[in-house]
Amino acid sequence: MNFYTRKWVRPEDLNGNGTLFGGSLLRWIDEEAVVYSVLQLGNGRVVTKYMSEINFVSSARQGDLIELGLIATEFGRTSITLRAEARNMITRTSILTIERIVFVNLGEDGTPAPHGHTEITYARDRVPVPDERTDID
Amino acid sequence: MNFYTRKWVRPEDLNGNGTLFGGSLLRWIDEEAVVYSVLQLGNGRVVTKYMSEINFVSSARQGDLIELGLIATEFGRTSITLRAEARNMITRTSILTIERIVFVNLGEDGTPAPHGHTEITYARDRVPVPDERTDID
Amino acid sequence: MNFYTRKWVRPEDLNGNGTLFGGSLLRWIDEEAVVYSVLQLGNGRVVTKYMSEINFVSSARQGDLIELGLIATEFGRTSITLRAEARNMITRTSILTIERIVFVNLGEDGTPAPHGHTEITYARDRVPVPDERTDID
Amino acid sequence: MNFYTRKWVRPEDLNGNGTLFGGSLLRWIDEEAVVYSVLQLGNGRVVTKYMSEINFVSSARQGDLIELGLIATEFGRTSITLRAEARNMITRTSILTIERIVFVNLGEDGTPAPHGHTEITYARDRVPVPDERTDID
Amino acid sequence: MNFYTRKWVRPEDLNGNGTLFGGSLLRWIDEEAVVYSVLQLGNGRVVTKYMSEINFVSSARQGDLIELGLIATEFGRTSITLRAEARNMITRTSILTIERIVFVNLGEDGTPAPHGHTEITYARDRVPVPDERTDID
Amino acid sequence: MNFYTRKWVRPEDLNGNGTLFGGSLLRWIDEEAVVYSVLQLGNGRVVTKYMSEINFVSSARQGDLIELGLIATEFGRTSITLRAEARNMITRTSILTIERIVFVNLGEDGTPAPHGHTEITYARDRVPVPDERTDID
Repeated sequence: MNFYTRKWVRPEDLNGNGTLFGGSLLRWIDEEAVVYSVLQLGNGRVVTKYMSEINFVSSARQGDLIELGLIATEFGRTSITLRAEARNMITRTSILTIERIVFVNLGEDGTPAPHGHTEITYARDRVPVPDERTDID
Repeated sequence: MNFYTRKWVRPEDLNGNGTLFGGSLLRWIDEEAVVYSVLQLGNGRVVTKYMSEINFVSSARQGDLIELGLIATEFGRTSITLRAEARNMITRTSILTIERIVFVNLGEDGTPAPHGHTEITYARDRVPVPDERTDID
Repeated sequence: MNFYTRKWVRPEDLNGNGTLFGGSLLRWIDEEAVVYSVLQLGNGRVVTKYMSEINFVSSARQGDLIELGLIATEFGRTSITLRAEARNMITRTSILTIERIVFVNLGEDGTPAPHGHTEITYARDRVPVPDERTDID
Repeated sequence: MNFYTRKWVRPEDLNGNGTLFGGSLLRWIDEEAVVYSVLQLGNGRVVTKYMSEINFVSSARQGDLIELGLIATEFGRTSITLRAEARNMITRTSILTIERIVFVNLGEDGTPAPHGHTEITYARDRVPVPDERTDID
Repeated sequence: MNFYTRKWVRPEDLNGNGTLFGGSLLRWIDEEAVVYSVLQLGNGRVVTKYMSEINFVSSARQGDLIELGLIATEFGRTSITLRAEARNMITRTSILTIERIVFVNLGEDGTPAPHGHTEITYARDRVPVPDERTDID
Repeated sequence: MNFYTRKWVRPEDLNGNGTLFGGSLLRWIDEEAVVYSVLQLGNGRVVTKYMSEINFVSSARQGDLIELGLIATEFGRTSITLRAEARNMITRTSILTIERIVFVNLGEDGTPAPHGHTEITYARDRVPVPDERTDID
């Protein structure tokens, strides 16, 4: 699993009890998963279709550093399935895990369309790249 | 199921594709479910513990009216389980459903504590009420 | 008066003194009143035209549960007048009341248009309903 | 009336119809009025107590420049009354006016306290100024 | 330098350490500088092109009053250069200064276009004014 | 340079002209740079002290994917200097670059304190790690 996006928990991310608001966390993960899916499918039009059960293992507090991890676990004909985790960057404690988030690949008419991919790419070879690439992520 | 909170979809709620951002929707539901749980358990210290799978049945657009519905489906010793739905107020089309959201009731020491309830209340008899009540919701 | 939308006061809703920011409260009420008006007039194009005086009776703190109540008090030819209240859900203490909020019904050309209604509906019979209704709010 | 704070209307300030969200406008005015009152009363602990009727004269769109104006119109023993206006900076068209916004001056115990002022100051002579002043606002 | 926009530091403006979030401050300044440039150039289409070095001289806390000051220091053929400062309104302590912020004036085709101005205006004579002006800012 | 955090440009990130708001971009970078500094210095109390000049090379639009890159370029006795870049993930077009962002390491008393590091770490060996590590970032 690759951890990319990082968050520094600020007061605007807290709930009424002063701990990390679960709704904010879900918002971060949904955005991150969209970005990941777009890069895997090479298509900007993807929609969240399904999330499997979510376990809120631990919480977080103001000032904590959080990182969001994702890995593609399955490529369907018109969909992609991801596994997601949010964890504390310092302690490595898991905050929540989601076994399966499914995105559907849409065609220009807004209906599900085949994406033609069957395996994860770790490069950025599925997106239109106008210039020669000079680095590897 | 009772539908309380209503939202009017504004540009700040949209994703990069211009449709309702799934992360915003999950944020609304999490807040709503907390409020519902507090009223059922009569305790302000509850935490989201678990969400079962989420089906994103349809989407929404700017200007749509959304309502959020909740019903308690199970009372554990230290927990409460809810069913949630978000739907379009006009068309009644379901946007997403979550079969089970589990909140845990915390004691003053921050650990799970028995709440003593086994059934839904439709009144507000589980919260400290300083004055005589003059209305029924 | 019917109380629908509920809010859990989070840090982002607080002012510089650490109590509920009046501006946030007015924002919630304006959104709620729009939704109410749309459902009464059966038209998505309504605009806030007028608010009568506002008494900020009490304040609120982080973690408080707030509910917003509305009732239509008058139907004009092209307008609707509402009464609004925000109150603490637990103590039933009023936070603010607004005697009259007036919305104007707009036609397709963006100017005031007759809406044809003279009384409150408690159902949802003024909005386009594609399927048979299966519940009563 | 002095116009200080300026806003550039961005998508996050719009309502579901794509025009300036009234709730956002009220939020800006409440913040601005607090700042003005603190400077007039020389006390950081002031609370919004009352707003007189609000006329939404015109609206605004994305990209519009808005300015917020305020003037103290009355000094009570423990309160201050302001008049407020929001207008389009380019066309000078009024967007809304509020004849009277009343703030109450609080003492250290959180209850209304005399502020000792009877007239507007156009300088900043009512706030603790540690260094010599080098400009006049 | 003229100080216009004022901010009251609220919890949503704080970083994970509980002091004013630098990113929020930069956001306020960018918005303010856009408004200033539009008024000087008489054109709503301006883009931030460059900011010179930024010294974060001091910080701020919840409840502080901040004001943002700007002055045009140079008029290019298609650009305008500003100096900016954010300071505490009460103590006059500088929070940050930016020697040069450059905005470029865009034509209808989105490319840099001459604006025809060489000096600061303190009036609003560079914007379309439909009615006679009745006040001076 | 390592690119971690990714953003999907949503309507709330746009300015009045409908392109990416420079202030939002600066906000993202400031947060990202704090996280990076904390991980390099092994200390949660760091403050932004200085940013060198910023060139806004290109802009972005709704739906664009942005990634933020950072690299430590200099370790002072009590400070760390970073280079930052924001770029379009798809086209690799640079959006802005900042040659030097300086953070100061604070001690428990809130004043600058030596951090004891002289080189970049690519692991997470400078933070308290309670459990054995099972992955490499």
